[in-house]
Amino acid sequence: MKRFVIDPWGFFLLKDYKKLIGQYGIEPLTPRMLSKLPEPNRLMRRGIVFAHTDFEKIIDCILEGRDYYALTGIMPTHETIHFGNKSVIENMVYFQEHGARTFVLVADLEAAATRGISLGESRRRALDFHIPAYLALGLDPKKTIFYFQSENQAVKNLAFCFAKRVTISEFKAIYGSVDAGRIMSALLQAGDILFPQLEKAMPGVIPVGVDQSPHLRLCRDVVRRTKRNFGFVLPAGLYHKFTPSLQGEMKMSKSIPGSFIGIPEEPERVRKKLMDALSGGRKSVEEQRRLGGRPERCMIFELYKHHLIESDEELDEIFQECRKGTRLCGECKAYAADLMERFLKDFGRRMERARKLVPKLTFVR
Amino acid sequence: MKRFVIDPWGFFLLKDYKKLIGQYGIEPLTPRMLSKLPEPNRLMRRGIVFAHTDFEKIIDCILEGRDYYALTGIMPTHETIHFGNKSVIENMVYFQEHGARTFVLVADLEAAATRGISLGESRRRALDFHIPAYLALGLDPKKTIFYFQSENQAVKNLAFCFAKRVTISEFKAIYGSVDAGRIMSALLQAGDILFPQLEKAMPGVIPVGVDQSPHLRLCRDVVRRTKRNFGFVLPAGLYHKFTPSLQGEMKMSKSIPGSFIGIPEEPERVRKKLMDALSGGRKSVEEQRRLGGRPERCMIFELYKHHLIESDEELDEIFQECRKGTRLCGECKAYAADLMERFLKDFGRRMERARKLVPKLTFVR
Repeated sequence: MKRFVIDPWGFFLLKDYKKLIGQYGIEPLTPRMLSKLPEPNRLMRRGIVFAHTDFEKIIDCILEGRDYYALTGIMPTHETIHFGNKSVIENMVYFQEHGARTFVLVADLEAAATRGISLGESRRRALDFHIPAYLALGLDPKKTIFYFQSENQAVKNLAFCFAKRVTISEFKAIYGSVDAGRIMSALLQAGDILFPQLEKAMPGVIPVGVDQSPHLRLCRDVVRRTKRNFGFVLPAGLYHKFTPSLQGEMKMSKSIPGSFIGIPEEPERVRKKLMDALSGGRKSVEEQRRLGGRPERCMIFELYKHHLIESDEELDEIFQECRKGTRLCGECKAYAADLMERFLKDFGRRMERARKLVPKLTFVR
Repeated sequence: MKRFVIDPWGFFLLKDYKKLIGQYGIEPLTPRMLSKLPEPNRLMRRGIVFAHTDFEKIIDCILEGRDYYALTGIMPTHETIHFGNKSVIENMVYFQEHGARTFVLVADLEAAATRGISLGESRRRALDFHIPAYLALGLDPKKTIFYFQSENQAVKNLAFCFAKRVTISEFKAIYGSVDAGRIMSALLQAGDILFPQLEKAMPGVIPVGVDQSPHLRLCRDVVRRTKRNFGFVLPAGLYHKFTPSLQGEMKMSKSIPGSFIGIPEEPERVRKKLMDALSGGRKSVEEQRRLGGRPERCMIFELYKHHLIESDEELDEIFQECRKGTRLCGECKAYAADLMERFLKDFGRRMERARKLVPKLTFVR
């Protein structure tokens, strides 16, 4: 049995991701690097985590048992999360189980600065939904350090201390257009990313969707430019492919309802969306039996690969059956809907338990 | 005796100040308004406070004993203050003695964002020099609320909440050019100005050099645009003329050493600078005795008027003597140097006492 399954089915959208490699300090995550990681998770084994910046030093920390941290944020702009968030959280759990100090911040000030959402509203959403969801997806409430940006003096102070180190043109180069909210959010994110190092400079890893890499790039520039003042270690990035939309676009989009499955979402609606999803099926059953399906361009298969099927053997079996034409789209979609329903039900039960833990959490100030 | 001496000698630079009236919401401070104020101070009586925005409501608060506040900031970019700061502090003292809750903030985050000064360095300067200087100039340590921007969660949060309400073009229109530091500082200043209203919405007055009026204008725009979210009362501005440079420019400038007297500064150097200052004297003693001096264009007279002579009668006497040619520049400069030396010595003694009070201050967080 091969241990590392580096996106073996993966020419789907690969071109778009390949374009990013080499830009903005994004390097490919090689099989050699992955082979060093103890117990790589599904996302690592399957090339969904496909690129990185400076991740070698995180591997060293894991292997040598040295201090490092992992950090991610909650953006309370919506009242659900998406499958991209789920992947990030799963990697956070991986790092937490492999020695990382884990930090999760609520980006309430960013939500205020860029979307005009009040701090009170963000707080309510985070406590009612996002934080329990992050716990439901596997973060250990005892080992995870949570904070609200609005309650963290040090993070905000860092944002102001970094302001002189980045020019407007640099913000523009990274974000296209700028406004005060984006500028302040970008500097605040740099503050978040480096906050764990205020106590002690150490390597840290930020798992993100690849669209977030500009933030890490800006943060790394800030680290270089404040070397004498702060002496931070350059943070590492680990980049995810997006969970593709059910119609086959690169990314699920909340603005296209049929493209998207929320966490949580009504099982019946989810089943309907999956039934309507783009598959790699042929024009007719007869043709599919004769020529075989095309799992490499099937959104249902993408969901299996990213989220629904843990076992590499089972995933490979489905792939082969589809290719041979012995597995047809109808039954396959029904199976995916069953798995999704099971995941969402399980998530609901975990949420109930997690909500009871929230009042016991202490938030860093 | 006339009670209100509205810049009776004051055509010096008046043209430049007059230009500002009507712009940016700057209105003239009229004799009628001043006549309502109880015990107007030297700066008010002499037209050094010459303009305002919305100051009528502060007058009403004073007369009716209603709650209001006065606020100013310490910018710890230098290790001395200037005579412009002194005027602002004197007005803060006036408001403190006339019912205002008084707030003084240390703009350590602004110093970091715009000048790259570390928070530690700003803190040291503020505690060693600026805060005791503000007490030495008359603020009551028991009645003044001090805080550091870096320690005030609420002020920083307001800055982020305001970010979405101001466009880059508006920052540009106000400041000419923009960078991240200026944008963040401007929003933070709006946060400072409105912080006292978080507990309870009420009128407030910000006494500033007239060059600072754009900050107040931006803050007032923010108040209008966040009416539904925060319901702040529009803050009022009270604008000062600058203490002119010793060579006759509009403003003392730290970059031209001879233009400027610091607080504190070596008495011998001060005497030398005053002796070299631009006066309203004539080419010769003979001519001056015959034609009289021109106190309206004399920098020594400006210093008397702004800072050195408290009694309106004495000031008027000097003015008349100079005009008549009975008072010559040499003796007049020597007198100014004596008064300045007395002020600086007195300041030094008050600083010693004030420094002992600093450890007992509590800072709002």
